[in-house]
Amino acid sequence: MCGIVGVVSHSPVNQLLYDALLLLQHRGQDAAGIATNHSSMFSMFKANGLVRDVFRTRNMRSLQGNTGIGHCRYPTAGSSSEEEAQPFYVNAPFGITLAHNGNLTNQAVLKDELFRNDRRHINTDSDSEVLLNVLAHEIQEAADGYSLDADAVFKAVAAVHRRVRGAYAVVAQIAGHGLLAFRDPFGIRPLCLGINETEQGNEYLVASESVALEGLGFRFVRDIAPGEAVFIDENNQLHERQCAENPSLNPCAFEFVYLARPDSVIDGASVYATRLRMGEYLADKVSREIPVDEIDVVMPIPDSSRPAAIQLALKLGVEYREGFIKNRYIGRTFIMPGQGMRKKSVRQKLNAISSEFKDKNVLLVDDSIVRGTTSREIVQMAREAGARKVFFASAAPPVLYPNVYGIDMPTRDELIAHGRTTEEVCREITADRVVYQDVDALKRAISDVNPEIKNFEASCFDGIYVTGDVTPEYLDRQESARHAPSSKDGNEDKVRTQLNLNPPVAAE
Amino acid sequence: MCGIVGVVSHSPVNQLLYDALLLLQHRGQDAAGIATNHSSMFSMFKANGLVRDVFRTRNMRSLQGNTGIGHCRYPTAGSSSEEEAQPFYVNAPFGITLAHNGNLTNQAVLKDELFRNDRRHINTDSDSEVLLNVLAHEIQEAADGYSLDADAVFKAVAAVHRRVRGAYAVVAQIAGHGLLAFRDPFGIRPLCLGINETEQGNEYLVASESVALEGLGFRFVRDIAPGEAVFIDENNQLHERQCAENPSLNPCAFEFVYLARPDSVIDGASVYATRLRMGEYLADKVSREIPVDEIDVVMPIPDSSRPAAIQLALKLGVEYREGFIKNRYIGRTFIMPGQGMRKKSVRQKLNAISSEFKDKNVLLVDDSIVRGTTSREIVQMAREAGARKVFFASAAPPVLYPNVYGIDMPTRDELIAHGRTTEEVCREITADRVVYQDVDALKRAISDVNPEIKNFEASCFDGIYVTGDVTPEYLDRQESARHAPSSKDGNEDKVRTQLNLNPPVAAE
Amino acid sequence: MCGIVGVVSHSPVNQLLYDALLLLQHRGQDAAGIATNHSSMFSMFKANGLVRDVFRTRNMRSLQGNTGIGHCRYPTAGSSSEEEAQPFYVNAPFGITLAHNGNLTNQAVLKDELFRNDRRHINTDSDSEVLLNVLAHEIQEAADGYSLDADAVFKAVAAVHRRVRGAYAVVAQIAGHGLLAFRDPFGIRPLCLGINETEQGNEYLVASESVALEGLGFRFVRDIAPGEAVFIDENNQLHERQCAENPSLNPCAFEFVYLARPDSVIDGASVYATRLRMGEYLADKVSREIPVDEIDVVMPIPDSSRPAAIQLALKLGVEYREGFIKNRYIGRTFIMPGQGMRKKSVRQKLNAISSEFKDKNVLLVDDSIVRGTTSREIVQMAREAGARKVFFASAAPPVLYPNVYGIDMPTRDELIAHGRTTEEVCREITADRVVYQDVDALKRAISDVNPEIKNFEASCFDGIYVTGDVTPEYLDRQESARHAPSSKDGNEDKVRTQLNLNPPVAAE
Amino acid sequence: MCGIVGVVSHSPVNQLLYDALLLLQHRGQDAAGIATNHSSMFSMFKANGLVRDVFRTRNMRSLQGNTGIGHCRYPTAGSSSEEEAQPFYVNAPFGITLAHNGNLTNQAVLKDELFRNDRRHINTDSDSEVLLNVLAHEIQEAADGYSLDADAVFKAVAAVHRRVRGAYAVVAQIAGHGLLAFRDPFGIRPLCLGINETEQGNEYLVASESVALEGLGFRFVRDIAPGEAVFIDENNQLHERQCAENPSLNPCAFEFVYLARPDSVIDGASVYATRLRMGEYLADKVSREIPVDEIDVVMPIPDSSRPAAIQLALKLGVEYREGFIKNRYIGRTFIMPGQGMRKKSVRQKLNAISSEFKDKNVLLVDDSIVRGTTSREIVQMAREAGARKVFFASAAPPVLYPNVYGIDMPTRDELIAHGRTTEEVCREITADRVVYQDVDALKRAISDVNPEIKNFEASCFDGIYVTGDVTPEYLDRQESARHAPSSKDGNEDKVRTQLNLNPPVAAE
Repeated sequence: MCGIVGVVSHSPVNQLLYDALLLLQHRGQDAAGIATNHSSMFSMFKANGLVRDVFRTRNMRSLQGNTGIGHCRYPTAGSSSEEEAQPFYVNAPFGITLAHNGNLTNQAVLKDELFRNDRRHINTDSDSEVLLNVLAHEIQEAADGYSLDADAVFKAVAAVHRRVRGAYAVVAQIAGHGLLAFRDPFGIRPLCLGINETEQGNEYLVASESVALEGLGFRFVRDIAPGEAVFIDENNQLHERQCAENPSLNPCAFEFVYLARPDSVIDGASVYATRLRMGEYLADKVSREIPVDEIDVVMPIPDSSRPAAIQLALKLGVEYREGFIKNRYIGRTFIMPGQGMRKKSVRQKLNAISSEFKDKNVLLVDDSIVRGTTSREIVQMAREAGARKVFFASAAPPVLYPNVYGIDMPTRDELIAHGRTTEEVCREITADRVVYQDVDALKRAISDVNPEIKNFEASCFDGIYVTGDVTPEYLDRQESARHAPSSKDGNEDKVRTQLNLNPPVAAE
Repeated sequence: MCGIVGVVSHSPVNQLLYDALLLLQHRGQDAAGIATNHSSMFSMFKANGLVRDVFRTRNMRSLQGNTGIGHCRYPTAGSSSEEEAQPFYVNAPFGITLAHNGNLTNQAVLKDELFRNDRRHINTDSDSEVLLNVLAHEIQEAADGYSLDADAVFKAVAAVHRRVRGAYAVVAQIAGHGLLAFRDPFGIRPLCLGINETEQGNEYLVASESVALEGLGFRFVRDIAPGEAVFIDENNQLHERQCAENPSLNPCAFEFVYLARPDSVIDGASVYATRLRMGEYLADKVSREIPVDEIDVVMPIPDSSRPAAIQLALKLGVEYREGFIKNRYIGRTFIMPGQGMRKKSVRQKLNAISSEFKDKNVLLVDDSIVRGTTSREIVQMAREAGARKVFFASAAPPVLYPNVYGIDMPTRDELIAHGRTTEEVCREITADRVVYQDVDALKRAISDVNPEIKNFEASCFDGIYVTGDVTPEYLDRQESARHAPSSKDGNEDKVRTQLNLNPPVAAE
Repeated sequence: MCGIVGVVSHSPVNQLLYDALLLLQHRGQDAAGIATNHSSMFSMFKANGLVRDVFRTRNMRSLQGNTGIGHCRYPTAGSSSEEEAQPFYVNAPFGITLAHNGNLTNQAVLKDELFRNDRRHINTDSDSEVLLNVLAHEIQEAADGYSLDADAVFKAVAAVHRRVRGAYAVVAQIAGHGLLAFRDPFGIRPLCLGINETEQGNEYLVASESVALEGLGFRFVRDIAPGEAVFIDENNQLHERQCAENPSLNPCAFEFVYLARPDSVIDGASVYATRLRMGEYLADKVSREIPVDEIDVVMPIPDSSRPAAIQLALKLGVEYREGFIKNRYIGRTFIMPGQGMRKKSVRQKLNAISSEFKDKNVLLVDDSIVRGTTSREIVQMAREAGARKVFFASAAPPVLYPNVYGIDMPTRDELIAHGRTTEEVCREITADRVVYQDVDALKRAISDVNPEIKNFEASCFDGIYVTGDVTPEYLDRQESARHAPSSKDGNEDKVRTQLNLNPPVAAE
Repeated sequence: MCGIVGVVSHSPVNQLLYDALLLLQHRGQDAAGIATNHSSMFSMFKANGLVRDVFRTRNMRSLQGNTGIGHCRYPTAGSSSEEEAQPFYVNAPFGITLAHNGNLTNQAVLKDELFRNDRRHINTDSDSEVLLNVLAHEIQEAADGYSLDADAVFKAVAAVHRRVRGAYAVVAQIAGHGLLAFRDPFGIRPLCLGINETEQGNEYLVASESVALEGLGFRFVRDIAPGEAVFIDENNQLHERQCAENPSLNPCAFEFVYLARPDSVIDGASVYATRLRMGEYLADKVSREIPVDEIDVVMPIPDSSRPAAIQLALKLGVEYREGFIKNRYIGRTFIMPGQGMRKKSVRQKLNAISSEFKDKNVLLVDDSIVRGTTSREIVQMAREAGARKVFFASAAPPVLYPNVYGIDMPTRDELIAHGRTTEEVCREITADRVVYQDVDALKRAISDVNPEIKNFEASCFDGIYVTGDVTPEYLDRQESARHAPSSKDGNEDKVRTQLNLNPPVAAE
């Protein structure tokens, strides 16, 4: 999970990209980067950390130009080094920078092809570097000498679609030619287009979520369609083209469950509205499984399950209370080296208000249950706070399978629902009752809001991998890679990284 | 507003103080500092910034010892420089470090006395440095040669109470002698005591709020009484003494309204419970002023007004919805120098979910209305989102007077309620109706939870300054100081500061 | 002027490259960089500053691998930004990193060709990036699919020689294939080869000067010939080939005068020995122009003129004294912004011992006179110290023309000897007599030591540009570029730069 | 060994103090600090490292005011932590900052007195903090209320002289009162006074060496006498007073041998002139011990032995050559952790020019022989370079005893001359002959230049400790402290330290 943004403007875009990344920060807090373009030169800065920690005045000053792209990265297993922060850059052909959200499922094959056939050197383990080089190669093939028009660009994207498998939403800049954005043919990861009509002409912004458009004063135009590419050329002219042969919309269900901001609209569906709807369907399920008069109070696990919980409470006619207080300042917190892994658990993030639990039967609502360790702790906190019974409802169905399209998921044996019945999960998390959303209900919750969404990438719930190339062997390989030891150290002082492109980096 | 903590343990306290400051971070995000004591030597590190940004591994390593104090600072006008981060240190007598929450109202007189009579040099504008030197002087007077027992310490605190005016909750370490904590005779700022019984003996923790105790596994013992001092000597023996002549409890009402965490208990009153109660009283007032059937929905302005809003909705029998989504990642955000003050307004922090406003009459609930600028923007956002009518209820009464006891408040002419009727405020913030809590109701909301609280420091609502020394001239002086130009620049790269006391600062 | 180094070893080379750069630091104190190769992946770190300031433990740790290249940069007009620190990297074909010493005289043409014909994006103003892309293009042409043998590499170098004009000594790594070094066909900039025979096989080191070889325990093998390339393949096999059509040796005379370390041997000539010889020839000239008995004492301007001065004194039979003391700690020193350009002159670097000057006729010996401002100050210091007469001898002839082969020289109108007779120079620097070396004598001083050196790149003395493509128009363009305003600020806090290639950058 | 400076000016002194420290940098490269005074407030910044590395623009900006003191520290065993960088500060009485050069021999007793009698807390192991607190206590005793005139200050210094033993040259600022400088009653460490007459009145500068005065445009007035104090009050009036009872001049002989810059004048003697004289006396000794016609060439070990070597060569009538080239860029160099202690020996600092050694008998001249390890390596380098015979002359006598007055010396068993005859030393360093200066000759070399210097602190040569309190037991204690393991790590990233006194630290 990552956030991406691209913009073509009539004035410097450094501040705007910074603000956009803040608005997309919930999609990735692990690293951030910006690359801008100025008279055919690129400036780039990227580093591990939150947006507010990565960019300082001198970095911002160095990011000159009226077009640019930005990225914030979710920490995924095996790609958290500084060098793998995005965007990436290649200098031939033309000079291209690229940032992407998603995951390629045929990265190994592509890397080999690039190496063997195209003699392109991939210097990291990032699939984004692979994707960039595939794109670069196809642009090289499609271009006619130095000339590169929209047709050639779209031809290259079509070739990328043919070679690449997996989920990908992409923004890229081609020096001297324009800004390109495209989305994989299954439409797994979101991407939308906004416009700002100014006196000097139109400005365009492409971003993972609509909140970034709105927050920056751009008007939402539409979602980029699956397989589609948009290209804004050097004259700020917008070109659009469907570049895939059999595109179909299969948005990631987890975006609605948890990842996206509730105030975003993705593929025509308000995330907030889908969560209310999940609450309603979940209320139906709960009322079938638990006598409603046994529930004294409904409580969300803040923040993401709040809309579902409010709606569920309303539907059930049970009082809604906020018994857990969230500590906003606990992030990835410091731990003294050598003290071992202390209990930096959910108890630092949440605190229970005893008076709300005392002698009550509480129904806790969370967006999903993944490993179950957090859920178990929360149930115990509720009991310690005096709850008589603790019911636990999940707005999402059981998480049974890994995700290979860009969401960092534990391996199957770490998923609490993998190989366990709901009753067993209930025992594991020490609840009195666990109620899961049904898979169908989840899908309906989204379709209800936008009936045009008929298919979903919901593999972690239903095990169906829409791209058709994900074999059990592939999953095994992914999982064994996850189990490999990592050198990551959460306490390291920040290493600041800069791909040193172009203009003088003035100090403050 | 600041957070303070002090601890006497049987093992290194650096990690514990770090965690405590995270738990108190809501009381001040401007600067943070820790001073520990190790074989009569102090180690100290402090700098501007959030706790997680201030302390790195090497700083933490240098903070050796089993006792220590910590501080996080709220940005107050005129004391935001790095040098004025706390704790402070003096080397005579004995070596003392001190951190404090509050504000002295006779700082100017004290500074002059220190200079003239005691030849003590005050090197900053911080009243904490003044308070430390008064304490140091009184300890010097009370001590008998090198000997310093609890009696002498309490005698010194009593003398401090006689000389100092204002609000102050204090933690201090006296090298070779022990940890001291005391609270002003009016009990304005909170301070509580916790214990951890271990096999090696008792450990004690003193903190601004009970959440810090609980979060660190200490058991809440009691609030420190107004005027009282506790002293934990070198043998970990706890001594307690009332050091003021006419102490009386007047807790700051604003702690309950907004400052404290809802899961804290202050002076015997659960902050959460008082906020529910504020919601109830506010519901009464609302129902007298607005026909309830005109209200379609009740909405909090997240996060602090949530308990009051939920309770208010329940009492009125109106649906509770969360129509505003908060962006968790917008903090003190970066602005490119030279771009002027762009609209980094509340719109970056909040986003409205249109479907919740569309064609509805909404009652927005906030904890208080201070300047009114935020309220006006929120009202406008609600209207833009489609609200038919926008009512605005404040869980606190009109803010009419400045606070001189450690809360950073605008000057009177910046307070929207100053010199305006409620109708005028309503017009200013462009609402359809404004409903304020009554002062009595606010006080009752707190007293209901703990009937032993009979008096309040509620000067910003009722204009009564309990310490009896605050004259109109004093207020005028404070306000003109606030209007003086400041050199503060929010975008500056962090300057890291360290009072270089003792043990080797090992690098990572 | 820069220093370059490349090494192929059987063990990690990070420390060795660091030490090599220290030994070459006199060739450039402006920026430093290292790129290593490890299982076909590159690691790179570079930044502005001295070697000891640029590399910290975590950077060093990240530089993994048994082969690598390094660079230290002399500050030349217009190329002092962080982004233009070397080495540079391109990812196609194969992945290549390169560092170079020299200057291309047809950079503009090449840049245009690269852009137009090869669609290669050049993101900085550095001619090294241009040179790397020319090399990359030619390797792409020469390679047969993924295969790339020494023949193909040498073919590419031959093509580079045909396209590129100017002076260049180059080290480059081709990922998966080997280390390449070559020197321009005129042999202007030095480059030599060393070997270390170990039990695991031979290790090779290529460097600008022989001191780097010796200081690291490598045995000097020979200078790389003009136009020659050496390639050490992945099996540590050394390949050698003359790749130019009409190579000829024209070493830069300024290397011997000033740039190189005296303990280096360049193109078969000991720099120290040539300087002694310059002292002898200068003695002859002096004795023709000044009555020797009028000279009481001979003094060097430390450090570089010392050998010439000692030998001159000996030849003249005049006492040698060191009357100027050099302050070793004055570097590029700090100046408070806004204080304007204070007198941070030679007086901070040198101090005169009065007793050595008092009532004496002193003959000062410097390596050369460029702008004359330093010389004037030195003459004045000598007078203030009590000298009766001050004679000034230059071991080099008058500097009359700009250098276009990598030495940073002022424009013609800033050169004191440009358009002035020796008498006029003497008046300008307020000396009693100025004696310049003759151009022939300078050349002889070098040829005497190695008679095989018959031609020289001595353009700044004789105006002859050996590459044959330097027109008056070219010089005018260069000079007007120099006069353009620069944004450089000597006091800026260091910006650390990293082309983020591959392996995890472990923190300390 | 350290350098100190203090200045009272009519304009800001930050830049001037920075420049002064650069000029004194040879006296200490381990740490640097500056404290300035501005309207009775102090600003201070200090950190480990060279002056040019310690101070950045923002630190310099924060150092406001027209008076100030500075310090650069030599790395002495056991006091190299960041916290012990100077100056130090105490806030009572008045606020005092202090920096000192020297070493107290009764530090332990003083520390105990301060603790027990004065209740003053010493937070580091630095004797400077002890000295500051003794001074502070005596000023407190001498002051009459807030009033503090020159008489009282001098009374306090007299009391310091009575309590303190050892060597100390001191600069201190008393907030609101003035700048104080004084020198121990034996005049061991140097200190001199300079003046700058401006239109606004006199400015005064006090510094360890006269080079600092001259380099900054101040006129040398005189050396501060042993035991004397000078005080420049708030009105820039200079007061002078002899504060010791039996002062006597015993300057440290090692200052002349090695420590001071040759262009300084210390206690009336030009350091350069004394070194020439050492060369002459050494020539006499050499000519008695080695047949002069056996010596082909005389060579200095650069840089400090150069004057002695030149004069020795002249006196002997033997050719002077510089056969060793010094690498200016090797400092405390980086070593990869875990690679163990590689041979970062003198061979990295020096390189031999073979042609100067080949088949010659060389007489190497060094300023002194301490451990002998460097000498041995140099002798071997000379032989490897082809020397037939290698004679080694030391401008100083055998180093036999430790120094306790501020020079960092190895323990006795590490001193090569301790317990060895000259012949044995010669064998140890593998020379053909070793010639040491005689102790008397060394003293005469200095007295010749200024006959008023009749006594010396020359304990490391003659074992006489002039302060009369240094017992064998004391020396044993010192030595065993030196052998204790140290946590020092030369490769650590810099920790920047700031005693946060007063004015806003503006960022750049």
